[in-house]
Amino acid sequence: MAIKAHKVGIVGLGTVGSGVAKILLEEGERVRRHAGQPIELSRVVVRDLEKPRQCELPDKILTTDISEITNDPEISVVAQLIGGLEPARSIMLQLLESGKDVVTANKALLAEHGTELFNRARELGRSIAFEASVAGGVPIIANLSQCLSANQILSLRGILNGTSNFIVSQMEEHGADYSQAVAEAQRLGYAEADPTMDVDGTDAAQKLAILAHLAFGADVQWPDIPRIGIDGLDSTDLRWASELGYRVKLLAVARLNEDNLELHVSPTLVKLGTPLSEVRGANNAISVVGDMVGRVFYHGLGAGQLPTASAVVADLIDTTVGRSAITFRTLDLWSEATSKVLQTNHSSISGRYYMRFTVEDHPGVLADVSGSLGRNEISIASIIQREIDDDNVQGDDVSLVIMTHAATEGNAAAAVREIDALPSVRAGSVRMRVLD
Amino acid sequence: MAIKAHKVGIVGLGTVGSGVAKILLEEGERVRRHAGQPIELSRVVVRDLEKPRQCELPDKILTTDISEITNDPEISVVAQLIGGLEPARSIMLQLLESGKDVVTANKALLAEHGTELFNRARELGRSIAFEASVAGGVPIIANLSQCLSANQILSLRGILNGTSNFIVSQMEEHGADYSQAVAEAQRLGYAEADPTMDVDGTDAAQKLAILAHLAFGADVQWPDIPRIGIDGLDSTDLRWASELGYRVKLLAVARLNEDNLELHVSPTLVKLGTPLSEVRGANNAISVVGDMVGRVFYHGLGAGQLPTASAVVADLIDTTVGRSAITFRTLDLWSEATSKVLQTNHSSISGRYYMRFTVEDHPGVLADVSGSLGRNEISIASIIQREIDDDNVQGDDVSLVIMTHAATEGNAAAAVREIDALPSVRAGSVRMRVLD
Repeated sequence: MAIKAHKVGIVGLGTVGSGVAKILLEEGERVRRHAGQPIELSRVVVRDLEKPRQCELPDKILTTDISEITNDPEISVVAQLIGGLEPARSIMLQLLESGKDVVTANKALLAEHGTELFNRARELGRSIAFEASVAGGVPIIANLSQCLSANQILSLRGILNGTSNFIVSQMEEHGADYSQAVAEAQRLGYAEADPTMDVDGTDAAQKLAILAHLAFGADVQWPDIPRIGIDGLDSTDLRWASELGYRVKLLAVARLNEDNLELHVSPTLVKLGTPLSEVRGANNAISVVGDMVGRVFYHGLGAGQLPTASAVVADLIDTTVGRSAITFRTLDLWSEATSKVLQTNHSSISGRYYMRFTVEDHPGVLADVSGSLGRNEISIASIIQREIDDDNVQGDDVSLVIMTHAATEGNAAAAVREIDALPSVRAGSVRMRVLD
Repeated sequence: MAIKAHKVGIVGLGTVGSGVAKILLEEGERVRRHAGQPIELSRVVVRDLEKPRQCELPDKILTTDISEITNDPEISVVAQLIGGLEPARSIMLQLLESGKDVVTANKALLAEHGTELFNRARELGRSIAFEASVAGGVPIIANLSQCLSANQILSLRGILNGTSNFIVSQMEEHGADYSQAVAEAQRLGYAEADPTMDVDGTDAAQKLAILAHLAFGADVQWPDIPRIGIDGLDSTDLRWASELGYRVKLLAVARLNEDNLELHVSPTLVKLGTPLSEVRGANNAISVVGDMVGRVFYHGLGAGQLPTASAVVADLIDTTVGRSAITFRTLDLWSEATSKVLQTNHSSISGRYYMRFTVEDHPGVLADVSGSLGRNEISIASIIQREIDDDNVQGDDVSLVIMTHAATEGNAAAAVREIDALPSVRAGSVRMRVLD
């Protein structure tokens, strides 16, 4: 008996869409084996038929008319691979309303309109699968929503933006300054012409919002996640971090405290030799702690055509075989139920800090600085007053680098404000979190 | 409307069984949320009712009579958590035949009787889920069978035996010799009173056989996997490895060559700073390369009550919601279909080697050794003739440590046999693989 092929569609044939088409077309036998039935790419919707494509498509598959998918009852699953918010949102609603299950890689769309889209899908009895929306080829969505289902997740720490990690790795390994490293990332295709959303922490915050929904049932709006990007990073601090036995990583953190959830994205000192510190280049990694399983660490390519397409095709297979529908139904995601946990007041978050000040080299300065820290209940773990190759220090000034014991974000910020106002302290002080 | 609870049973209340019972009983609300319905532990079968237990069970749940599960039509899923081959095999068949879906953590049983058990389950329309059988809390089974389904897996490299990794870490970090490290592992509960199966590579080979079925469709019998354990490991070689920039790990490797599959378990030199080299203590890790996704790395606790129970409960949830049935159906596991790939002839496997010889310190010895290597088509990448703190060297003898370029296993073995027969070479030469 011939098994009937499952027909799927793609909307958007950019980098990821082309990768998905390539896998479905060139690796059909593999996909058939893993899905238990053939999966046939039957329609691809694009904006411009004439644009040169990265993949060869069979005749007549390509169309500019979405109704060729929405009106085709044989297509039951669609990979919606347009970026941005509109028309991605409208197309997604249109697909759901025409009875299609949807697979997407669009994290901005989910972070912004997740509640609307998930509610609509639930009303319509459809599913949305979104493995590719976070961390590319690292299957963190399936792992959180399925493999770790016996756990209360206690914390998530992720390197979720490959562009930023590539840039910081370049600065660290080649002594490049920030703008040189950005140029190199652009040259190699790791950064967009306008890399703002990657380097200012927006992209990582959007991904963290998705993971926080999944892992903690937290109803988080991504703009509410305090975030600092790598765009202000000074290579001097990478050298200091290295001296102290650390690497700087743009870290997205979610940590469950008693009854609230700590969330932030910021450049953070991570101890050398720990798995997160060894994540180089455009890789992503996530360290998850569950109350039963302990720490599980995932590492892989966070972006790129084929790693991301790998995640989309896995979702297409999961959807055609029926697993996505079950997962979507059992996960109460972006529901209108009350959020299970509220976000921590940012100023009360506690942790260790790295601080660097440029100060005049005369007696009394250290007493002033340490006095400010003491008044703000910050105790000093170690202090170095010494010049390493420091672009910011001129004349008789010296660098003062301080590692603190645990302090609250509010106190740390207040202390640095106070120290910055001291007459013997120059502008441009630096404060970064240190991972415990 | 009250949702009816899904009733499950447990057979075997040892360490893992107690952990599973604990999660189901104490974290019922969490399990209900993740499964979309309550899961009720309704019967636990043990051999001895009087034995003290690690967990509190409700009255009348405990029984010695398996028919209280097999005859109860309301119990649809059973966690079969007895170790060893019999009666585990018979009980598993009995459970399947009475219409139960089964979840198991018993890797030896699957490695030995997988084909029989999986065929029987298929005939009966039942499923077997086995996440906990490999790497404890690291969800490698779900990741291979589901998350990476768009990929042809190209290679797997795993640290799959936590006991061995703990022992080698102890030897390396504390300079302990093998027997001291085993004693410490036993004291801390990381090694059994008789640790043979862990330290001689059997356990890792059984797990590798399961992963090879899953990732490559290979019909592998675990006794056919060439394996060397850590039981012959000399701390001298850990020191040499460290000098050369490596750590020694008991590595299980599966690598797809043109049309055959390379499989082996052996202590292997892994470059410092790479993720696998940083796996310490009783942790497990697996590095998987897929043709689309690239390299994905997983790291976590490979054993222990709660990490393993976490995997079993995830499987129980997957089975009650229906995901396991789909996965079991679509994965053509341990089927009687022809194996998709044959195991490579071991002697033709190629790789780099670390070799250590103890030789008389006189002219001509080096020429003899390098002559033997050359005759066997092995070229030398680096050579050190120097004493480090080496317990094996006495009198005027010296250590000769050689790192080779890629050579076949057959040639490397032949060369060492030849060198061992030289009059100026002492007994006890060492040869280990080096990870590329």
